[in-house]
Amino acid sequence: MSTVATPLSAPEILQRHGDAAMAFVDEFLASRKNVPDRLMESMRYSLLAGGKRLRPGLVMETFESCRGNSRNSALACAGALELIHTFSLVHDDLPAMDDDDLRRGRLTNHKVFGEAMAILAGDGMVTLAFELIAEKADSKIAARLVVELANATGPSGMIGGQVLDIDSENQSLSLDQLKKLHRLKTGALIIASCRLGALCAAADEFTLDAITRYAEHLGLAFQIVDDLLDVTSTPEQMGKATQKDQGKGKNTYPVLLGMDASRTQARREVAGAIEAIASLGPSADGLRALANFVVDRNL
Amino acid sequence: MSTVATPLSAPEILQRHGDAAMAFVDEFLASRKNVPDRLMESMRYSLLAGGKRLRPGLVMETFESCRGNSRNSALACAGALELIHTFSLVHDDLPAMDDDDLRRGRLTNHKVFGEAMAILAGDGMVTLAFELIAEKADSKIAARLVVELANATGPSGMIGGQVLDIDSENQSLSLDQLKKLHRLKTGALIIASCRLGALCAAADEFTLDAITRYAEHLGLAFQIVDDLLDVTSTPEQMGKATQKDQGKGKNTYPVLLGMDASRTQARREVAGAIEAIASLGPSADGLRALANFVVDRNL
Repeated sequence: MSTVATPLSAPEILQRHGDAAMAFVDEFLASRKNVPDRLMESMRYSLLAGGKRLRPGLVMETFESCRGNSRNSALACAGALELIHTFSLVHDDLPAMDDDDLRRGRLTNHKVFGEAMAILAGDGMVTLAFELIAEKADSKIAARLVVELANATGPSGMIGGQVLDIDSENQSLSLDQLKKLHRLKTGALIIASCRLGALCAAADEFTLDAITRYAEHLGLAFQIVDDLLDVTSTPEQMGKATQKDQGKGKNTYPVLLGMDASRTQARREVAGAIEAIASLGPSADGLRALANFVVDRNL
Repeated sequence: MSTVATPLSAPEILQRHGDAAMAFVDEFLASRKNVPDRLMESMRYSLLAGGKRLRPGLVMETFESCRGNSRNSALACAGALELIHTFSLVHDDLPAMDDDDLRRGRLTNHKVFGEAMAILAGDGMVTLAFELIAEKADSKIAARLVVELANATGPSGMIGGQVLDIDSENQSLSLDQLKKLHRLKTGALIIASCRLGALCAAADEFTLDAITRYAEHLGLAFQIVDDLLDVTSTPEQMGKATQKDQGKGKNTYPVLLGMDASRTQARREVAGAIEAIASLGPSADGLRALANFVVDRNL
């Protein structure tokens, strides 16, 4: 009689990978010299505030589904993704940007440490993200990993998406324009998470391509659900202010398509994500669970 | 009769290297895809606003004095240093930080593009700096270069120095504390400039050590002179607000040592810088000219 391990649920997968990635980041932070105490405190406050750890989870699960060996490279990428994601949240919450008081159920960074420190803590985290990869990942692939992450983070990726988002407030976007905005603002980092995991596992081009298409669909599904949650959730459930989009004249899926069509579209994107990795077999079951989780947690 | 080329003056050296580095950055920027127009405009506004280009000049002159071959690596580092330096100026000038209206003789970035865009332009430039090195430098050394630059930029370097600077306003520092602040805030990037140039030239440990000591002295001299200029110059001469330090209760060399002793100290540091590279021979004459320039332009 063979023993078959019960597969982990999506929350268990995220917890396992998130814990490993954050322990790796924590050790890296502790090894930095000459960091002023208040700066370290400010960065840790936001980094260790919880959150789903979706991006580190995607890096590590993709890495494992591709049966990678260079685990330190993957952990460095997973930690870097969370550093970048947290940097973007800290800067997005600033008074000059979205002006939010609450994030992950706690006061936002600038509410606790002041605006100047929040700006510098964000600047510190984005810098540490690239240092983490360049220092800890396999030196044969580190530069490639930095290029991939920097491109997804910078003006051609997430930061460009932020600019489009700000510029389009109180303007009506077409569905195509909204898709482009989201592909940059949220999609780029989700795609980078999966691609970095695959690159750390030295995946072949065919696999990398399948993983990329999975991530493109997943990123879109994630954003549609995020838009829906802004309408349907309470701040207590989300740990941040909700029902802000409409007040700010933001372009969202529910506004453009309506609630029901948005839900249908999110489910269709998840189906597309799962279809994209059909060829990867049972080793990709964790990625399938994560894709379903993105919509099931809410719809 | 042999023809001896007239050695270039320090301003000519800076112009030559600055032009080469900024052309390299410009080409890199133009090759980025999907960058929103206003973001590109905001980054270019501050990047191309002039300035002495001291950091790119130090990278390239160190590289040449060490007789390096991988010129693209050095140009990538020189461009990255200017991207990092400009990012730090744009964020430092923000209302939540130093709240400055004038920089390099023009309105500061947030005065032209708004605070949100200035934050994002800074975020974009720091990201592009690491991407530029990882993509364009020799892949055998790119990761090492990223580690060196990220460490000098981040919480253990310039960004940490910014925090110390803000935290020490209206507090009296000892000379040792002031030195530590400056070693991080200004010194780290100047040291990184010289070390990156030497690393791109595959300099031996002995040379790298000499270059590092040169840069440590130069960084200190530069900061002392900067403090002096804040007292003695007009905004027209400097292209930014002057005589701000005292009003903000900033710790400076003139405040701690007096004007004359500060000038003496600056000259002593320059002498130390030149002494440190005595073994490098005539190929380092450009570095000697740059060291003298740092004090001669002002004292």
